[in-house]
Amino acid sequence: MSRVYLDWNATTPLRAEARASMIGAMDVLGNPSSVHAEGRAAKALMERARGQIAAALGAEGADIVFTSGATEAAALACAGRGLVCAEVEHEAVSAWCEGSLAVDREGRVTVLDPARTALQLANSETGVVQDLPQGLAVSDLTQAFGKLPLAFNWLGCEMGLVSAHKLGGPKGVGALVLRRGLDVASQLKGGGQEMGRRAGTENLIGIAGFAAAAEAAARDLADGVWERVAEIRNILDSALSAMGFEIISVGNSGPRLPNTLNLIAPGWKGETQVMAMDLAGFAVSAGSACSSGKVRASRVLRAMGFDETQAGQAIRISLGPDVTETQVLRFAEAWARDYKRIRSRAA
Amino acid sequence: MSRVYLDWNATTPLRAEARASMIGAMDVLGNPSSVHAEGRAAKALMERARGQIAAALGAEGADIVFTSGATEAAALACAGRGLVCAEVEHEAVSAWCEGSLAVDREGRVTVLDPARTALQLANSETGVVQDLPQGLAVSDLTQAFGKLPLAFNWLGCEMGLVSAHKLGGPKGVGALVLRRGLDVASQLKGGGQEMGRRAGTENLIGIAGFAAAAEAAARDLADGVWERVAEIRNILDSALSAMGFEIISVGNSGPRLPNTLNLIAPGWKGETQVMAMDLAGFAVSAGSACSSGKVRASRVLRAMGFDETQAGQAIRISLGPDVTETQVLRFAEAWARDYKRIRSRAA
Repeated sequence: MSRVYLDWNATTPLRAEARASMIGAMDVLGNPSSVHAEGRAAKALMERARGQIAAALGAEGADIVFTSGATEAAALACAGRGLVCAEVEHEAVSAWCEGSLAVDREGRVTVLDPARTALQLANSETGVVQDLPQGLAVSDLTQAFGKLPLAFNWLGCEMGLVSAHKLGGPKGVGALVLRRGLDVASQLKGGGQEMGRRAGTENLIGIAGFAAAAEAAARDLADGVWERVAEIRNILDSALSAMGFEIISVGNSGPRLPNTLNLIAPGWKGETQVMAMDLAGFAVSAGSACSSGKVRASRVLRAMGFDETQAGQAIRISLGPDVTETQVLRFAEAWARDYKRIRSRAA
Repeated sequence: MSRVYLDWNATTPLRAEARASMIGAMDVLGNPSSVHAEGRAAKALMERARGQIAAALGAEGADIVFTSGATEAAALACAGRGLVCAEVEHEAVSAWCEGSLAVDREGRVTVLDPARTALQLANSETGVVQDLPQGLAVSDLTQAFGKLPLAFNWLGCEMGLVSAHKLGGPKGVGALVLRRGLDVASQLKGGGQEMGRRAGTENLIGIAGFAAAAEAAARDLADGVWERVAEIRNILDSALSAMGFEIISVGNSGPRLPNTLNLIAPGWKGETQVMAMDLAGFAVSAGSACSSGKVRASRVLRAMGFDETQAGQAIRISLGPDVTETQVLRFAEAWARDYKRIRSRAA
């Protein structure tokens, strides 16, 4: 039986549109910084991509600074600014901030001073969606972009972070989005690329893929694709809840990403769940992919007030548009079979 | 008549091997940090690529840290270390160093304290090749890798910088090469990728392209492809010198990259030369691509002791293996025709 990929928040399959666009860009020879015809063609491709991403993100008129991913965008946006955040932020953001903001059991963050705060729109592990206050300094839009209807220009935040590979683009490309008139100090110095904000020859093929993926993602979203994903996620949530285990479906009482389900299964370590499900043919995660190589409790769940044991017993199931009802029900069955075995051994 | 691309030091056409490898990698779904089968497959691809690049670079046993390009690798290697360099270094290096070292008219740098010095192996604008002293802190190998026979393990430097798109790989991917046992402090923080040295999901497709290109480049080099390029470059150099103009062929008395020719044409601005040649169907450059959008004199030539006027009258012609003798002679003819017109107007 073929494998079922339920780890879309870690990374997504490359969209056909992104693939085609990247293959097209492989024939664009020039360096976007060169002034000759070949350079200008490369530059034109890049500027077209910038426009496509701005349109898909509702960020017309804002500045899009291409980076090697959301991690680099986070460093550009946050480093050295003395921002605060909650510990539910991705480590790429929290590494630069003081993690002092309170988080409730449902994952909602209390913001005190928006202009000094970084707050994600949606959490990668739980899917919990935040209300962004006006005047927010930085918002990590990585997980929300493409899954939730949003317009950067209406979010009220000064800077946003996005990544291509979370919405069907390639890994290793992202952007910092800046409200018009704002600036950041370049961290990579050298050539004057990206209006002096980020030196280094641009990842042209990746940028072409990012733009095509963003455009396709916006179309999917408008077509209601993610509403169907939410239905299937809810079917999975209900199926698992109906099985009689004492599991906790994390953050499910408020707004959540349509595709994400985070479960705490008492007595069953997250890492062991991931491995058992992998053997059974399902790819899921025990936290964010960046740190899932390490066996440790989720800092996101710890921040939400779950204890160390609980935070070590969670898995994240994250769906995408190609995941079917049959597949999630098969997952529920396989998961329950293994969990029963674990419970009976413990009893 | 079809265009002739003579700007290979700015960027190179994507090699067929890189293209195929990148298209193959588009089907690799996982995030290299995920522990499930999809993640492990992505990780395996990345580690295979690391081995291929190490082999092509003669850096077996050294650490290869993937970055978004040589600019990021330069920041990782140089920032905050108090290194010195000469002003012939690429700005991605010199931005982090004190540019105090002496350079002679032939572009040769005098190193005083290797352990505190960054010194390029080959210059992008002039092609001048340096003798690297033992114990050198950092060497920018970007232009040399793929064009000159070299083995990182025999260069005697602690760290090296390389870039994919200078040897037929994609733009936006590079690496920092570290002699075994050395370490650097991560500048992009977040996930623990690249052994904690560089956070952020890796540019998997780009890395696959880099590895295939590096392997193909090493094969070409062993096959003597660049010796033929040097012959054609020398034919061009002789043809231009025989035309009776008072031009200066920069740095041509010592070791040079096989493909690079830097000319100072008195009375003819570099920028104007580039535009005239662009109209005539040839892509050349008036400095390094990163800064060639700005009209200003070459800081490399200034460092070599040429005056402001001379440094503003240089062009760089950089060849690749697909450039023919017929093409360079056509270039020489077109260039001479325009230069004559300029000289006669000035007279």
